[in-house]
Amino acid sequence: MIRQKPLHVAPRTIMTPGPVEAEPSVLKAMSSTVLGQFDPDFTSVMNEVMVMLRDVLQTGNHWAYPVDGTSRAGIEAMLGSVIEEGDRVLIPAFGRFGFLLKEICERVGGDVKMLTCEWGEVFEPSEIIGEIQAWQPKVVAMVHGDTSTGRVHPLKEIGEACRSNDALFIVDAVATVAGMDVRPDEWCIDGLITGTQKCLSIPSGLAPLTYNDRIEAVIQERKSVEAGIAAAGDPSGHDRRIRSNYLDLSQLQDYWSPKRLNHHTEATAMIYGLHEGLRVILEETLEARFERHRLNEQALTAGIRAMGLELFGDPDAKLTTVTCIRIPEGTDGEAVRRQLLDDYGIEIASSFGPLHGKIWRIGTMGYSCQKRNVLITLNALESVLTHQGCKVHKGTAAQAALEVYHQKKAPEITGIPG
Amino acid sequence: MIRQKPLHVAPRTIMTPGPVEAEPSVLKAMSSTVLGQFDPDFTSVMNEVMVMLRDVLQTGNHWAYPVDGTSRAGIEAMLGSVIEEGDRVLIPAFGRFGFLLKEICERVGGDVKMLTCEWGEVFEPSEIIGEIQAWQPKVVAMVHGDTSTGRVHPLKEIGEACRSNDALFIVDAVATVAGMDVRPDEWCIDGLITGTQKCLSIPSGLAPLTYNDRIEAVIQERKSVEAGIAAAGDPSGHDRRIRSNYLDLSQLQDYWSPKRLNHHTEATAMIYGLHEGLRVILEETLEARFERHRLNEQALTAGIRAMGLELFGDPDAKLTTVTCIRIPEGTDGEAVRRQLLDDYGIEIASSFGPLHGKIWRIGTMGYSCQKRNVLITLNALESVLTHQGCKVHKGTAAQAALEVYHQKKAPEITGIPG
Repeated sequence: MIRQKPLHVAPRTIMTPGPVEAEPSVLKAMSSTVLGQFDPDFTSVMNEVMVMLRDVLQTGNHWAYPVDGTSRAGIEAMLGSVIEEGDRVLIPAFGRFGFLLKEICERVGGDVKMLTCEWGEVFEPSEIIGEIQAWQPKVVAMVHGDTSTGRVHPLKEIGEACRSNDALFIVDAVATVAGMDVRPDEWCIDGLITGTQKCLSIPSGLAPLTYNDRIEAVIQERKSVEAGIAAAGDPSGHDRRIRSNYLDLSQLQDYWSPKRLNHHTEATAMIYGLHEGLRVILEETLEARFERHRLNEQALTAGIRAMGLELFGDPDAKLTTVTCIRIPEGTDGEAVRRQLLDDYGIEIASSFGPLHGKIWRIGTMGYSCQKRNVLITLNALESVLTHQGCKVHKGTAAQAALEVYHQKKAPEITGIPG
Repeated sequence: MIRQKPLHVAPRTIMTPGPVEAEPSVLKAMSSTVLGQFDPDFTSVMNEVMVMLRDVLQTGNHWAYPVDGTSRAGIEAMLGSVIEEGDRVLIPAFGRFGFLLKEICERVGGDVKMLTCEWGEVFEPSEIIGEIQAWQPKVVAMVHGDTSTGRVHPLKEIGEACRSNDALFIVDAVATVAGMDVRPDEWCIDGLITGTQKCLSIPSGLAPLTYNDRIEAVIQERKSVEAGIAAAGDPSGHDRRIRSNYLDLSQLQDYWSPKRLNHHTEATAMIYGLHEGLRVILEETLEARFERHRLNEQALTAGIRAMGLELFGDPDAKLTTVTCIRIPEGTDGEAVRRQLLDDYGIEIASSFGPLHGKIWRIGTMGYSCQKRNVLITLNALESVLTHQGCKVHKGTAAQAALEVYHQKKAPEITGIPG
């Protein structure tokens, strides 16, 4: 047996599109002692999480709770609980995470039709709406903000078209919730999923989601209770049951309801972290939080441009929370990332598929989205590029960012010291 | 918006079959700051987790890593990655968690045959072996220790019969790993799953598992890489692909290999907790840990008997880590549990299905399994039963337990103060 040393974690400035730095009070809450899953003190925490989650997700839906897994666990739970063998699913994909939706929908049995566009662009809503009208899918699944290309898609018109064509509209809002305005009810979104590790500033491991009565109606029809705990009259073992036990929203909903019907053993520490993370967001207020994300993005992009670097993608569809930068000709993008990490402890991201090696991605999300981080990242990037022989304008990036901040002071991070 | 107060967690003595009290140094490790998922410092932590997990699981298998979800996520990942539509699966169930295996296997498409026995008993191995020979299943799925009835099943003979009949043997060892001796390689277990929230003394949220070359061969045949990240030549979108994306071991294995092929965003804090939890177990040594679990069980059962209460179930098949007690005639089992929690902050468990209201279950697992906890639980149970008018022998339970401890001193808990 090899004796391992105790964990030592080096400090990092994380400027990727996730996981980002966790709110310090969240980390503290996570180290609270364990409570039993049916301890009334713990079920109270669960109930408070539901109340706060509705506010953060800006929804009047009753159902708002996390799935115990990372973001894609929540996405698969939502899609797999709704989609049955052969159901038509339309997926307009404008980046890698649209293809993840395809992958998931196909695996759960959906008849998937893809719409695609150039990476870096988004769709004309009319193109998607025309296809909804022509093909009459049961489900339209879309990403709100695709971090792979740094784009955000307008959803309201598409949501309205789904509603009037009786399609269910399911949205992956992992990259946007708590960093940009997301309005499931106003935009006619029936099911929406997010993750903890981005703008919520909680470590990865939970996928908070919400859904309305239209989704609930479908999953109730498919409900099946485990033989080991079913009571007389409970539906059990029928043909339409959801294919996964772990990611079955009809069972999760019973567990998160006053019934507390036993399913998994809730992930205590993660729920503590979610409770504190949501509390901090509501204390800052969503309005102030969105404004903070916009201001830091302005400062970052001003600095990037002042350095002489070029932003990637359609500027009208840019995610506030992710900034994509073209890697200059002749520069080794991975060597730059490596030096930023090794010499400065700063992490930025590359991208996937056709964009790998072509762009860097800098995230400004949650607790990582603060003035100090933006400024040191700009200074460091300029120094590393210069050190690696890439010609950039010297001494201009931080000045441009400071200009933005001093025109309008950035709101302070409101993490709770206690 | 309702303003929530910051989290306050009351102290508890958790004597259930899970979740149990977490090792204090694990909670401390979990509050370490976030590292990016591909940060070399973080992938080193992942590699160390694999090394330590092999030792704790007592296996020479290469593949040993956690699924990001609670125990049943790992069970479903293993079964769903192996079982294809119509595959024969034999499940000998001796409690509730055998029926969970049925539920999962049916949902992923298996043709399931159940063997059942009276709850509180286990099988004659020959009964199971006869069925393996007669029915020739592709998979035999079993629980090692079923907490619902407090029984543990001998597995070696069954594993050997699986091997010689070319069946894959998949075992849920959630209740036993790190508390009782579990030997996957010696017992011919092909795939084994555990959870963090029991004898590993880490909060719920990860399902560590291991599997051998026989399982790997099946999942490699079913492998499919996501369209958004597939390289030329990668298998993609074929008929036999695993039905879940999130719980697909062929993808998880690529993520936990040097390839680090992007899948989910690893749950940083939980992995930190797993790292420290495994480290503490190996520092105590498995031998000392098993001995500690045996000693505390002896003391607990001596106390329970001395009080005049009756143990439930076949004594030859008793789990060391769970003690089931018949609720005395005329006693309200739930009222006793409630008073233990309200007045003493001590949690014990009820049970499921046919045993609900019939037995209490006291866990002695991981960090919760210590002399102090056993003694205060015995004293408290005697006081509460007396207060509720249930006739028990007075003043005898703790004496009987102390007798056990003073015959042989209990090994100290070796949690790391730092």
